[in-house]
Amino acid sequence: MDCQVAKLGHVALITPDLQQSLWFFRDVVGLEVSDEQDETVFLRAWDEREHHSLSLSPGPEAAVDHVGWRTRQPEDVDRFAARLDDSRVEVTEVPAGQELGQGRAIRFRLPAGGHSFELYYDVEKPAAPEGQRSPLKTSNYRAWDHGISPRRIDHVNIITDNTQATEECLQDLLGFQTRERARVDGEILGSWMAITSLSHDISILRDAERRPARFHHVAYYLDNYQDLLRGLDILAEHRIDVDSGPGRHGISQAVYSYVRDPASGHRVELFSGGYHVFDPDWEPVEWCDDEVELGMVLWGEHDLSRLASNTPFAQATTNRRG
Amino acid sequence: MDCQVAKLGHVALITPDLQQSLWFFRDVVGLEVSDEQDETVFLRAWDEREHHSLSLSPGPEAAVDHVGWRTRQPEDVDRFAARLDDSRVEVTEVPAGQELGQGRAIRFRLPAGGHSFELYYDVEKPAAPEGQRSPLKTSNYRAWDHGISPRRIDHVNIITDNTQATEECLQDLLGFQTRERARVDGEILGSWMAITSLSHDISILRDAERRPARFHHVAYYLDNYQDLLRGLDILAEHRIDVDSGPGRHGISQAVYSYVRDPASGHRVELFSGGYHVFDPDWEPVEWCDDEVELGMVLWGEHDLSRLASNTPFAQATTNRRG
Amino acid sequence: MDCQVAKLGHVALITPDLQQSLWFFRDVVGLEVSDEQDETVFLRAWDEREHHSLSLSPGPEAAVDHVGWRTRQPEDVDRFAARLDDSRVEVTEVPAGQELGQGRAIRFRLPAGGHSFELYYDVEKPAAPEGQRSPLKTSNYRAWDHGISPRRIDHVNIITDNTQATEECLQDLLGFQTRERARVDGEILGSWMAITSLSHDISILRDAERRPARFHHVAYYLDNYQDLLRGLDILAEHRIDVDSGPGRHGISQAVYSYVRDPASGHRVELFSGGYHVFDPDWEPVEWCDDEVELGMVLWGEHDLSRLASNTPFAQATTNRRG
Amino acid sequence: MDCQVAKLGHVALITPDLQQSLWFFRDVVGLEVSDEQDETVFLRAWDEREHHSLSLSPGPEAAVDHVGWRTRQPEDVDRFAARLDDSRVEVTEVPAGQELGQGRAIRFRLPAGGHSFELYYDVEKPAAPEGQRSPLKTSNYRAWDHGISPRRIDHVNIITDNTQATEECLQDLLGFQTRERARVDGEILGSWMAITSLSHDISILRDAERRPARFHHVAYYLDNYQDLLRGLDILAEHRIDVDSGPGRHGISQAVYSYVRDPASGHRVELFSGGYHVFDPDWEPVEWCDDEVELGMVLWGEHDLSRLASNTPFAQATTNRRG
Repeated sequence: MDCQVAKLGHVALITPDLQQSLWFFRDVVGLEVSDEQDETVFLRAWDEREHHSLSLSPGPEAAVDHVGWRTRQPEDVDRFAARLDDSRVEVTEVPAGQELGQGRAIRFRLPAGGHSFELYYDVEKPAAPEGQRSPLKTSNYRAWDHGISPRRIDHVNIITDNTQATEECLQDLLGFQTRERARVDGEILGSWMAITSLSHDISILRDAERRPARFHHVAYYLDNYQDLLRGLDILAEHRIDVDSGPGRHGISQAVYSYVRDPASGHRVELFSGGYHVFDPDWEPVEWCDDEVELGMVLWGEHDLSRLASNTPFAQATTNRRG
Repeated sequence: MDCQVAKLGHVALITPDLQQSLWFFRDVVGLEVSDEQDETVFLRAWDEREHHSLSLSPGPEAAVDHVGWRTRQPEDVDRFAARLDDSRVEVTEVPAGQELGQGRAIRFRLPAGGHSFELYYDVEKPAAPEGQRSPLKTSNYRAWDHGISPRRIDHVNIITDNTQATEECLQDLLGFQTRERARVDGEILGSWMAITSLSHDISILRDAERRPARFHHVAYYLDNYQDLLRGLDILAEHRIDVDSGPGRHGISQAVYSYVRDPASGHRVELFSGGYHVFDPDWEPVEWCDDEVELGMVLWGEHDLSRLASNTPFAQATTNRRG
Repeated sequence: MDCQVAKLGHVALITPDLQQSLWFFRDVVGLEVSDEQDETVFLRAWDEREHHSLSLSPGPEAAVDHVGWRTRQPEDVDRFAARLDDSRVEVTEVPAGQELGQGRAIRFRLPAGGHSFELYYDVEKPAAPEGQRSPLKTSNYRAWDHGISPRRIDHVNIITDNTQATEECLQDLLGFQTRERARVDGEILGSWMAITSLSHDISILRDAERRPARFHHVAYYLDNYQDLLRGLDILAEHRIDVDSGPGRHGISQAVYSYVRDPASGHRVELFSGGYHVFDPDWEPVEWCDDEVELGMVLWGEHDLSRLASNTPFAQATTNRRG
Repeated sequence: MDCQVAKLGHVALITPDLQQSLWFFRDVVGLEVSDEQDETVFLRAWDEREHHSLSLSPGPEAAVDHVGWRTRQPEDVDRFAARLDDSRVEVTEVPAGQELGQGRAIRFRLPAGGHSFELYYDVEKPAAPEGQRSPLKTSNYRAWDHGISPRRIDHVNIITDNTQATEECLQDLLGFQTRERARVDGEILGSWMAITSLSHDISILRDAERRPARFHHVAYYLDNYQDLLRGLDILAEHRIDVDSGPGRHGISQAVYSYVRDPASGHRVELFSGGYHVFDPDWEPVEWCDDEVELGMVLWGEHDLSRLASNTPFAQATTNRRG
């Protein structure tokens, strides 16, 4: 492949109550506000150097505006644009600076699912303000200043009405590789795909109701399982119910808990552990039929019904208010 | 009170499959076998110096033979015998050595619930065998030799058809003090009572089916929440399902998971954290009606239906086979 | 003994820079300010219900004003006064309210070492302010609001020029029992003594320079070892050097780190784990000569030279300014 | 670059006492024996699928036979051979099967330092034996069966008499990128270099005595800091002294402890946490002069003198006995 995605960059969320969502992501989850533009607030975690890994914008209802991915090379943005064009995918140009802290980008809807993705290379890397800086020269902010305080964004999970087509499209157009699959009665229930050494950078789940382009969660990473349990204490102290967990996934091997922003319903996964793949010849591992339950939950919360809820991607890539 | 209970000593379990129960408690839970007598196996945790905190004996079906409590003074055994006699509770003498490693004891059935209790003072404190000894002069065995490896026994939980009467009886006859209560519609659903600084040494739950003298669990203590999560990995690696958890109780503040011995159904709580009371003037704290859910589960597994199962106390105190 | 100490209550510290000490204990260690009186600030940890476990008062130089112990019964205060009088120890009355939140007390200097102790029973138990309250009915403040956030005070360590006499005096006058001793060439280097189930409520170390009445540290307890490591991150983020640790003591079995208030030099031990004694017949365990090194450090920091520094007890019990 | 290293594969150690080294790496560190050939024992960690990440062979004295790296593509082995030849580096062929479980490889000495490296692509991936298998389809062995039980190999640290030349050589010949450097008085004291997303796959330190080709340590990864502290308990229980730690490095951000195999002196780093780099445009971060101390130790053990000892690389690549 002549162009490559380097990593998950950010998730742009729309919320019907910006102030309460900001309280949740900043004060409870513990992200740092790195910038503001019009009504959009940009946030990132303490070990992140890029301008933002999450943005919050006001809108009539909860939605995901787009998921942003950074390319390996500056010229990959153009190469992806050409490749998408070859595949008859409509590409929208995003001029430098339209999204604060970020250079020129392109946006498009995933053919199979309709999810809005963004590709960019240029991005600012502002240092944390004096007085909030980490003593670590490779990090950015103080780690434990407020809230749950995750280290970095980890992955996104999207919902689709066609898992197989979405998986193929992520592989063929963007170069993701499948790490694990859950398959029931021959049909793919979920697929976990990676572009880095992470167990997955994106996972796709089948929507039981077969609606297109929905969003399940964005995951943030914590260094220790105990940090995650401490996070659950903090949620309880703010009277926020945990959606599911703590538990350990068989697929990805990670310890997890899910929680939803009370204002928007957008779901966050607190995520710790998991495996890395440095081998070049990983073969997709399939959990089939009666293996799927262990794949979903090695131990912990078994009632996954509360996980069914999810939020839509916005119908237009520019429906952020303002 | 002229006589006092010092601490929970041990739980004597009867199992229909001694070898499989031994595998569970020794190889999976990670207790140490300290002694054997006829068909009874005596076990203890790595930081325990007394002869045993658990015994396994074969019997036609799973049952609890008795729960043993150690007194503060040698002469307390006689004083308790006199007091029980005053309260028209039938007391059985257990001659020194009938229970291996232990001096003379008395046994009786709790008037309110029928649970068989034992009181003793004299007990042997055998050192761990050479080669298995802790480098710590205040401890006994190596901590991490096999299995989940808890530090010590923590408490028992018993089921009764009359929580209020059982609570009063534990208080008046044995000197336990109530730390916390769950109360629904005026009736006591559960009570957590202590004789030490622990949040509780015994808890009593109401049996929905109003059967007498049943046993819910024995708890073993781990130093860190992470040690408990590691324990869940070990259970999964032995293909043993967790009964409930991990979660955190509001009542007791402890992080927990429940698991049942596959052979007998006897339930063990893996238990970490929790508060201590050193104040002399603690007043019972009540969780009422809609507060009870938070009292049971601050975060974690909400489906408590799997916890309903429990095992009976034996109908005679001497029904251990052999 | 007709009167008993129930627990360690609080430590009253004098500092030459109240504002910087307050920053250290409140913002870095993460204690809560419960009250203020004149220039004295009263602090406590999130799981503490009594009025304070630490107070900070301004003074010309760093010193410990007194260590406060709570008695088991209200009448124990008078009984201790009589017993001290019998032993020709001068007792000073402290009228109710002189120390904020606290009833009538007595103060005296430990005969063997000259350390100023206080005994009291009556104490206020103010609830945390609305908005800072724990969801746990048995606790008080939110656990993870700021700083390292320990659960509760654990013990004090004092320095004396005569360890044996100080140990005897704590035993005979106040009822403490020796749990462990370090002995070199027949002389007691240190002694760890308890009045509760804790491994120790007070430890005494020999001053190499044979000065009387010095203070080594006050320990605060954290539930998990990982919480303590997170505390070391927080210290590093505030550019505060750790004095020693992390490591694990053989004696007490606890994981520890020591850090000093930059303003006063008063030392705090972050302390997690350790054993409890519920047995009534514990015999003191001695670590002799070449065993002492393992007793001091099972693993971790071996260079204890930085621990030599310590702060004096005040020469008069009332030298707090104002 | 037309050929790429994918990952660190294994370290081949020579020991003067194979049985005691095997006890250390298998029973204490907790690696699994995957295979044996003549007198060489092959080991790997529970989450490793490749044939081995460590081998132990007997020899007259402790030495490192070679460090093995896996390439991205099968044809990369030939391409590297050609490139090394172009650079006048002598390349030795290793026929398939000479090293058990492994296909054809090449070996060469690093021009700048003389360390013996191996490059290979083909490798067997034997499944764990029945009864020792993980319930996780993406893993291999049970995680907590014995010993400290790390997840996987992480990195190696080599000692050289010329850090700058060694760094350039790793970059130009093998494609490693520098993540961090420690520089004192203008000279490179150490360099941390990566070929994966890990903070580093290899680090190089300057030998104070300017000897060529020495080995400092091989690091194994644990998921949680608490797992590492548990590892220190296990070392203490086997009366093995920790070399240094626990502490946290500024460089790499990881929590660590070092321990040496009592038989050979080969050093192992227990390693947890650390950052990953997914950004394509990382610039080397330098810790200069008085920043170096924080770079080496953010918190924890400050006395690094015990770390000075290290073991040589073998003088011939084939000096394994037999």
